[in-house]
Formats: sequence, structure tokens, C-alpha cells
Amino acid sequence: MSPRSLARYLPILDWGRRYDRQALSSDLLAAMIVTIMLVPQSLAYAMLAVLPPETGIYASIAPIVLYAVFGTSRALAVGPVAVVSLMTAAAIGTVAEQGTAGYVAAALTLALLSGAFLVLMGVLRLGFLANFLSHPVIAGFITASGLLIAISQLKHLLGIPARGDTLPEMVASLSEHVGEANLWTLAIGATATAFLLWVRTGLKPALLRLGLSAGAAGVVTKAGPVAAVVATTLLAWALGLSERGVSIVGEVPQGLPPLTMPPLSLDLVTALAVPALLISVIGFVESVSVAQTLAAKKRQRIVPDQELIGLGAANIGASFTGGMPVTGGFARSVVNFDAGAETPAAGAFTAIGLLVAALALTPLLFFLPQATLAATIIVAVLSLVDLGILRRAWAYSKADFAAVAVTILLTLGFGVEAGVTAGVLLSLALYLYKASRPHIAEVGCVPGTEHFRNIRRHQVETDPAILSVRIDESLTFFNARVLEDWILSRIAGSPVRHVVLMASAVNEIDFSGLETLEELNHRLKDAGIALHLSEVKGPVMDRLERTTFLRDLTGRVFLSHFDAMRALGRKSGRSRRRMTARDWPSDRNQGKPHAEQDQSIPRPRQPPRDRGL
Amino acid sequence: MSPRSLARYLPILDWGRRYDRQALSSDLLAAMIVTIMLVPQSLAYAMLAVLPPETGIYASIAPIVLYAVFGTSRALAVGPVAVVSLMTAAAIGTVAEQGTAGYVAAALTLALLSGAFLVLMGVLRLGFLANFLSHPVIAGFITASGLLIAISQLKHLLGIPARGDTLPEMVASLSEHVGEANLWTLAIGATATAFLLWVRTGLKPALLRLGLSAGAAGVVTKAGPVAAVVATTLLAWALGLSERGVSIVGEVPQGLPPLTMPPLSLDLVTALAVPALLISVIGFVESVSVAQTLAAKKRQRIVPDQELIGLGAANIGASFTGGMPVTGGFARSVVNFDAGAETPAAGAFTAIGLLVAALALTPLLFFLPQATLAATIIVAVLSLVDLGILRRAWAYSKADFAAVAVTILLTLGFGVEAGVTAGVLLSLALYLYKASRPHIAEVGCVPGTEHFRNIRRHQVETDPAILSVRIDESLTFFNARVLEDWILSRIAGSPVRHVVLMASAVNEIDFSGLETLEELNHRLKDAGIALHLSEVKGPVMDRLERTTFLRDLTGRVFLSHFDAMRALGRKSGRSRRRMTARDWPSDRNQGKPHAEQDQSIPRPRQPPRDRGL
Repeated sequence: MSPRSLARYLPILDWGRRYDRQALSSDLLAAMIVTIMLVPQSLAYAMLAVLPPETGIYASIAPIVLYAVFGTSRALAVGPVAVVSLMTAAAIGTVAEQGTAGYVAAALTLALLSGAFLVLMGVLRLGFLANFLSHPVIAGFITASGLLIAISQLKHLLGIPARGDTLPEMVASLSEHVGEANLWTLAIGATATAFLLWVRTGLKPALLRLGLSAGAAGVVTKAGPVAAVVATTLLAWALGLSERGVSIVGEVPQGLPPLTMPPLSLDLVTALAVPALLISVIGFVESVSVAQTLAAKKRQRIVPDQELIGLGAANIGASFTGGMPVTGGFARSVVNFDAGAETPAAGAFTAIGLLVAALALTPLLFFLPQATLAATIIVAVLSLVDLGILRRAWAYSKADFAAVAVTILLTLGFGVEAGVTAGVLLSLALYLYKASRPHIAEVGCVPGTEHFRNIRRHQVETDPAILSVRIDESLTFFNARVLEDWILSRIAGSPVRHVVLMASAVNEIDFSGLETLEELNHRLKDAGIALHLSEVKGPVMDRLERTTFLRDLTGRVFLSHFDAMRALGRKSGRSRRRMTARDWPSDRNQGKPHAEQDQSIPRPRQPPRDRGL
Repeated sequence: MSPRSLARYLPILDWGRRYDRQALSSDLLAAMIVTIMLVPQSLAYAMLAVLPPETGIYASIAPIVLYAVFGTSRALAVGPVAVVSLMTAAAIGTVAEQGTAGYVAAALTLALLSGAFLVLMGVLRLGFLANFLSHPVIAGFITASGLLIAISQLKHLLGIPARGDTLPEMVASLSEHVGEANLWTLAIGATATAFLLWVRTGLKPALLRLGLSAGAAGVVTKAGPVAAVVATTLLAWALGLSERGVSIVGEVPQGLPPLTMPPLSLDLVTALAVPALLISVIGFVESVSVAQTLAAKKRQRIVPDQELIGLGAANIGASFTGGMPVTGGFARSVVNFDAGAETPAAGAFTAIGLLVAALALTPLLFFLPQATLAATIIVAVLSLVDLGILRRAWAYSKADFAAVAVTILLTLGFGVEAGVTAGVLLSLALYLYKASRPHIAEVGCVPGTEHFRNIRRHQVETDPAILSVRIDESLTFFNARVLEDWILSRIAGSPVRHVVLMASAVNEIDFSGLETLEELNHRLKDAGIALHLSEVKGPVMDRLERTTFLRDLTGRVFLSHFDAMRALGRKSGRSRRRMTARDWPSDRNQGKPHAEQDQSIPRPRQPPRDRGL
């Protein structure tokens, strides 16, 4: 393998060679800021996935280093994120009971499978598959997930037990237990939430007014959760809130991330395969979107297929070091970027910072109330909720609105897997529906020019013996027959003797398209009509020349449509007929070959039938 | 309902009004010929579906009349056909034991469900769904079905019991029982097969040499099975072959078709729903193809959505009159057409002929050997087998070849449902794969003109500060991001200050496409680059004007690409650079935004970075 292609798979060889003192100091500063932010965030997302708090920290150490080696983004920070943590809880909740050793182990298996899928997709260059998650589906899914996450954390604000992976389950469980709410917990949770909301909305403008730079104000704002953590931990310690029924984090093991072996029984792998695939794809989409946003700001670029390998390595790393599924997070990456991170080394330094935290700081977190973590989660995910997408999609396209609405409703009602799957299938179905109804126009010559335009929109000249048809789509198996039906119904009972198919918009003709053209040629021949083509593109023509179609074609292939009309018009010897747009009562039936439309076409009296067999 | 729209749903009101003596005599003659052909064919297809022989005759009476009322083809003859009979046997074989009353009743339920699906699809105008069965899938499926049918009939030629719905099952069962072959049966079967093959290949040319018209020779040829039936029946009666172990048709009930009530238990309906849907769609596709072929010969037209209703009515009729699933058959329709049928009344007269046969002729069929029927089936279906499709598809397109091959293999190996389903899914997947990789070209100005062409194919002028991009596809959720990636990797480290997207080939921008453009605009802005559009189509522009995109666009929308280059080139003040096609080492990477390609682009040294945030 040449150094260049090796660098492709190991981007570290590229930036590592040029690493200098200036980059080092930028990276160190960014790492310190990110570390401070990540400690409470890691604990919170572990709690969201109903995993022990240390899992979240472990999941930010090895993955960050592995991503630094294999990933292509300079600023992406990898670790547990809200949506993936929610999906993790939903997935492993189906194979093990919360709080058991099996549950924690299942998270490792999920991370390993998800990492394996990512690496596999990267090696096979399947990154493009993520494109099949349309924006409406992603937006709907993220919004619904944000709502589910926020609601799932209400139990921690109230200090009650509650369960459920879907909105109806959660609401039922919450209303069942709401009477058991602990007031101390509620006080801490509500205060922390209010404080964090103020930090998010009120603090930044205040800091800007005080003269801080936008970047610095952003970093300070992101430190809000740390302040809430410190304050409520001190409060809980001072007032002994744990004896008053306030759930606290408690003992977090001190030490290096453990070496873990994810269990790989066939049953477990089978049960987790689909969730792992969805987590991979959704994590990848989120991560690439963050990475691209940051890379564009510096005219850098990321390589999506290599990102798959970077994220895959990160997840595999997480699975062997006591972690959970991870991906590139928005908030942490933006902080990293704003704090001045220049290379992935910033990530490695962050990992060292977290390692120190895991070794030394965890006892300080003993009294941290879970309600505070819940508050940080709720405030963080509320920014994911974007119900305005419904309005925007509705205004733009009803099909896209349907995809958003179905994704949101199914995610809320039946969980994340059902929501995403239904959204993707619906998007594809709507796309195929649209693509299966190509726009077909009868064209005529704009007087005095060589241009041909839709006879329904323009004043054009036509020849009753020649039917000029333009299809604005490639000819593929699911739309070619529409063209055939259209032409066959258009010629029924008409005096047409030549059909000229203007192929200027046909980028491809697949085998079904070819056979449809052959059938059309044959059927038109039976009716005594010649079929001609015009403006066929080079690559399409190359393929047609490998078949017998051109030999059997009753008519000719013309370079331009104008050539065709000139040659055939002279031969047919008929005079041109002037049509005006007003001959056409409405534009609405355009492209539909059905009866009503045909009847609207002012057609000469039926000629003697051509019975040529 | 107006008479016109009533006639739309009841085509009989249209042709019935103009019916005259000439049409009557043509129709009567055609009906006589078709009746003679249909008696053995109906028995054979009932045997293929392992149903009592009379079922096939009953299934040709009520359905033919109902199709005459509701269908739009003038010549289509409806009844049991080979592929649908095979699918029927496979479907009802899963819910009941062959030869039981439940098995016969399940055929009625299948016909009812299939009729209900057809009518429903017709009312909802879902005929276009059939287009998703690509030609390669249909061809592969029909070929594999023909092979399966021929092999399934070998047991009747050998006079042995054998079972199985798939090739491996059939082969195993046949080789197990081949030792029990009955020589008399084999002699009759082999002779009948050889005779029928000669009729098909040798008789028609001989008749033509004798001076018969092509039409008459065709009709005589189609009577071959009748001759075989008469001869072998007489032989079996004269030699008492039934006592020598030759299976004969035996007693066929004499009488009108019975009034039957298809059982509709939930279990049965659930079990038969998917097969019924497949039978509907495949029957519809076959039938429409036949009907269109015949209609085109007389410049008539059929209405696919109304055909669904006609075929649906026919199947529902079959289910209440002791029949089985039916559709428009190729052989019988061609005979009907060649014999001069002018209107669907010919079908009604055929139904009367079959009614007479059911009442009076069935005793004559007592001694008809089953081996003769098997021979007629084998010879009929061998014409369906077209393995040449593999070669033709391979030559034209590897994707289409894959669809044919998978459909054939899965149909043979796992049965008709698996084959069709896999074929359809594979076709869609391959289509989406191709559509997700749109052709993207960087364009430059052809010197001395206002035309812009791909810089890899033509000698064109470009401006290093302006990137002109043309995408040859609509912007949809699964390809828009490809454009974004392409542009972002192209501008990475380049001195580009303006990106102009030439949208001449963009027929639609969906919501994902819009958001991708918004992101692209935002990211380019971050990099200090303005995004412009040119040659946006009217309907696309209408939609964009309903959004905030045009307001936020950093650049402008130009009517023509030439306008854009003139305005921006002057502003950027840089001189044009002449590029030649030879600057581009190869055409192969076209449209791929990956690293290798970027490295092949001769790029000026990196400019000072624009850090605009």
C-alpha cells in the first residue's frame, strides 16, 4: 500500500506529519474546555440509556482516540449522544432487564454490532445508503426522539419510578406514579431546569452585552451544566438530601476503563442486529452532518465513507472498554471547534482529561442529584424538537409533509425503530409514485423557430399526420409503459402516420424501457404508423446500437426534432395546422392519458381504419 | 351519473349500441372456433391446478360474460391460464390437501380475493402499480413458471404420483417414483407431445404451402389439441386403456355451473391474501399485455384501470360459479382475434358454447387420457420459456440481467411468490442505486458560443474563481447530498469565490433537496463563497418562491448560465483560463466526488483561507 492510499485510511498520517507547537496549544486549550463539559454530559447520557454513570465516561475515552486516528473531521467529538442513547435504551431493553449485568453487557454487544456495521459500510463504500433517510424523516425522527427523551426524564425530576419506550406507555406510567413525587427532588430538578433554560436563552446575550466575543460567550454558556452540577452536588451534600429521598449518583468506580468482552450469543446478536443497523445509520447521518458543517467553515472536507470507518472504530473501541454506542455529537463538537481545536489531537487530549476524571474525580460526583442530570438532558434535547418542520414541509410539499408527520407519529406511538422504518418506506413509496408518473407532453413547433414546446402551454404549429411526443424522464421499468399507454391512447382513432419521440430528456433507457419501445414500434407498425426518435443522447444511443431495436425500427433516428419534422412533414405532404394555447381548455390533465383528456383534444373526424397487420 | 361516465365503467353501453348483423356473424364464427379450442384447454388448466376438470370449464363461462360487460378489450378471452393455474395450485396447496373439498373451496376463495383486489385497484386507479413489475422480472418469472409447469406435468406423462411446488421438490419426487412409470400412459403422452410439437412447428408452414391464409392456418394449428384429444380418447375407449393403468378424466358432472359460496374464514383469507394479490397483479399484467397487442392492431384502445374492473368482475364471477382464478389468456385471445371477433359479444357466444359443452359433451370426455392433457400443457408452456432473455439482458445491462437471473433462480428454487417478490425488490433496489448516483458535471463555456459543456468532454473556457456545476437529475432526498458532497469536496482548498448551479435538468426539488441547497448555501457562506442558480425551471422556481431560500441565497438566480458567467466573471475581474479536454486524464471518474478525482484536477496553489463564519 502506498503512503498516499494508507493516509486515506489513516487520516492521522496526513495531519500528524504537519503537527506543530501552535496547533498543540490550540488543541490543549480546546481539550480542557471540552473535558469540563463532557463529564456531566457523559453521566447524563448514560443515565438516559439507563446504564451505570461511568459507562458514559468510558464511552468518551477510547472512542475519541480511535476516531482521532481513523476519522476525517478535524473537530468532531465522539461520545454518547441523546438520540443514540435513547435508541440504545429501547434496543437493549428488549433483551435484558434494566439494572442487570445482562443489560450492561447488551450495550457492549450493541456497540460492537453497530461498529461492525459502520466499518463494513465504510469498506464497501455504502455511505450513500444514508442518503435514503430523507430530511423530513430525519427531522421528524429527531423531533419525536427529543420529545420522548424529555418525557422519559420527567420521572427523575419528580423522583418517581416510571417506564416505557413510547409516548402512550410513558404517559400511562407517569400518571400512575405522579402521586409519589418527591418534593426535594422536584425542587432541585425544576430549579436546575429553569437555570439551564436561562443559561441557554438569557446568558449568552448578557455576556455579549458585557463585551465577550461570540465564541467565548458560547463556551461559557456551554459550561452552564457544570455550574448546575457543582451547585446541586454541594447542596445535596450540605443538606443531606439523599436521606430525604433525593436520588443521587452515588458511588462511581474509580479507575481506568475496564477491558470488556461483549457477549456474542446468536440470540443476542439476532435480537440486536436491526437496532444496531439503525443506530449506525442514524448516528452516521447525525455525525456527518455536524462534521460537514464544521469542515465547511474552514474549507476542509470530510470523506463520508472514511467517516463510517472512523465511527465504526469508535464504537468497536467503546464495546471493549465498558462503553456504549457512540457517535459524533453536535454540542460537544461545536464547543471543540469554537474553543479552537485544530486537529483530532484535541480529541486525544480530551480523552486524557476524561481519563483523569475517571481516575480521580468520580468521588466528587457521589452527591450529584439525578434530577440535575435529567434537567441537563431535558434542556439539551428541547433544542432538538422542531415542530415547525411540519408547517414548513406542508407549505412546500404535501408528500414531504406526510413523511414528517408519519415519522413523528410512529416514533412517538410505536418507538424509534417503527418511526424511522415507516418514514423511510413512505418516502421511497412517494418518490416512486411521483417517478412512475412522468411528465409527457405533445410538442409543436414555435412558429419561425426550430424550438418545440408543449402544445398546451404555447402557440405552436403541428401536423395532424405527425405526433411529436416529449417525455421528461428516463425510460425505466415503472414508467416506460405510461409512455406506451399515452401514445397508444393518443393515436386511437386519429389520422397519425408518424410518431416522433423526442428523447432530449431521456438520460437512460433500461431493459424494460427498451422492450417497451420495441413493443411500441411493433404495435404502431400493426396500426400502420412509423415510430421515429429524435435528439437521442450519446450514451443512450450507444446502448441501443447493441440491440436489434434500431434495425427493426419502422422509422428513423433524427439528430434534432426539427430535422424530423422537416423530413416527415415534406413526405406526408400535409399542411401544418396552427394551434393556439386556447384550444386547450385546461392544463390540469397534462400527462394523463385517460379518456376525459382525449375527448378534450380537438380531433379531426375518424379516418378510414388502417388494417395493416 | 351521466351516460358518458356510465359508459366508462360499462363499456358494453358503448359497443352494444352500435351492434349490427355483420358484427354478429363475425362474432358467432369466432365463438365457435374458440369454444372448440377451449374445451380441452379448460380441462388441462384445471388439471394443472389439481382441480376437478369441470372447474376449468365453469371458470370460462361466467367470467367471459362478466368481462364482456366490464372489460375494454374487444378481443380478450378470459379463463384459466397456465401461469395463474400454477400459482393457484401453489397457493391453495398450502391451506388444504389436494383432492379434498376444502382444496376446491379454497380455489373459490382465492378467485374471490383476487377479484376483490382487482376491483379495488381499478376503483382506486392503482393500475400503475403493475408497472413496478419490470420486464426482466416478468420475463424471468414467466420462463421459470413455464419450466415448473412443464416439469409438473411429467408425472402425468409417466403415469406416476409426484408432488412439489419447486424444482428441487419436483425432481426429488419424480426420481423417487420414476420406476413406477406406466408404459401405455407414456406411449400416449409421448405420442401426443410429439404430435402437438409437430402441429406447432411443422403444420403451419405446410398449410401455408398448401395455400391457406395465415389466419386460417393459425386457427387450424390451434385446433391441434382438439385432434389429439379426440384421437387419444377414441384409442383409450377402444383399447380399454383405463384397465391397463392409464389415468383418464372419468366422469365429469353434466349440468350448468353450480352456484357456489366461497368460504371466507379469517384464517383462510389471511393465508390466501398475499398469493391472491400476486395472482391479481400478474394476471393483470399478462392480460393487459395481450389486450394491448390486439387493440393496437385495430387502433383501438384499452383502459388499464377499467381492465382491472373487468378482470376483477370475471374472477368474482368465477368464485360464485364453481370456477378458479382467471385472466385474459394469450392463446385463446389470439384465436378469438384471428377468427374475426369484432366485439366482446363473441365472448358471450363462447360462454354459450361452453355451457352447451358442460351440459352435453362431458360424457364424451370420460375416456380422455390425462396424459393427453399433460401433453397439451407441456407444449403450450414451452413457448413461454425464453432463456434467451438472459443473454439479451446481459448484453444490454448487467443490472437487468441480475433481475432476470434472480427471478428465475428464486422462482425455480423457492416458488413463484419468492421469485416475483425478490425480482421486484431487486429491480427497485438497483433503480434506486442508480438514481442515487446522479451525473454531476463541471461545465465551461464552448469558446465563441453561449453553450456550456462538460469540461471533461469538451474544450471549454473556465474561470478559476467560478465553479459551474450541472446536475443531470432532479434534486431529491437520496441524491441531493451527493451534489452537496461533490461541491464541498470540489471547493476544498480551491480559490473558488462563486458556485453557479446550472439547474436546466432539475425537474423537481423536494423538501430534502431544498434543505440541502439551504445547507450548501450556508456552508459556502461560511467559506466565503456565494451560491448562484441558473436556468431554474418555472415550476421549480414557483416552489422556491414559497420558501425563505431565495431571500437567504448569498448569490443570485440567473435566467441563463451565460448571463451568470458574464455577470460574475466581470465582477470577479479574473481572466478566463482555457482548458482542453486533454487536461483531463480520464472520463471514468465522472460524477464521483471522491479523493482520487479531486487529485486529478489541476488546481492552483491554495489561497489564503477565508475564515468568514
